[in-house]
Amino acid sequence: MTGEELAKAFVDHYYKTFDANRALLANLYQDHSMLTFEGNQFRGAQAIHEKLTGLPFQQCRHVISTVDCQPSGMPDGMIVFVSGTLQVEGEQHVLKFSQMFHLLKGPTSFYVFNDIFRLNYA
Amino acid sequence: MTGEELAKAFVDHYYKTFDANRALLANLYQDHSMLTFEGNQFRGAQAIHEKLTGLPFQQCRHVISTVDCQPSGMPDGMIVFVSGTLQVEGEQHVLKFSQMFHLLKGPTSFYVFNDIFRLNYA
Repeated sequence: MTGEELAKAFVDHYYKTFDANRALLANLYQDHSMLTFEGNQFRGAQAIHEKLTGLPFQQCRHVISTVDCQPSGMPDGMIVFVSGTLQVEGEQHVLKFSQMFHLLKGPTSFYVFNDIFRLNYA
Repeated sequence: MTGEELAKAFVDHYYKTFDANRALLANLYQDHSMLTFEGNQFRGAQAIHEKLTGLPFQQCRHVISTVDCQPSGMPDGMIVFVSGTLQVEGEQHVLKFSQMFHLLKGPTSFYVFNDIFRLNYA
């Protein structure tokens, strides 16, 4: 699998899981993982899980516009940069967002070490 | 200087240099640096210099909306995530953009190892 294939497979898996049952996203983070969500910082799978499951909507749908990736310099490390739109239940308008992930290889699979999310307000 | 102060100082310097004389940005990259600009990949300070100086406008102005940063896991490595707007000469509308940098510490100063840029089309 090339880096690009890995990045696309990760992005596909991440947002499908987010939209279907985002509690399961916690499996993609470890204790030293970091999330910056709209400027608020969370550290560790548990804190990230609480933030993601506590978001004030139940149903949502991500549509991905672009996926870019580069090796990060860490062993097997990969930076993935995503842009797309997010439709939240009860909202007429879609929200544009950008998000970056730094994926590292764990004992059994890749996990998210860095995660930064921002809405792109019009 | 905290990571956050470093990130903000870098962002301030980067976009001021871009808007004043972007040929000088080449100094911030090294031979193994990578730029993905709107999906097109460039590797090395020389190729990145040619891409940036070859952009089809002379005057532009970046305005930064948000700066987020996290340690990348590399020694002194820092991920910087930026959102903002770009006004290009002769264009009425501003363009919204997102960009991420992975900064690494070189012998004398930080340099850009990873750089991914995307316009956020409305």
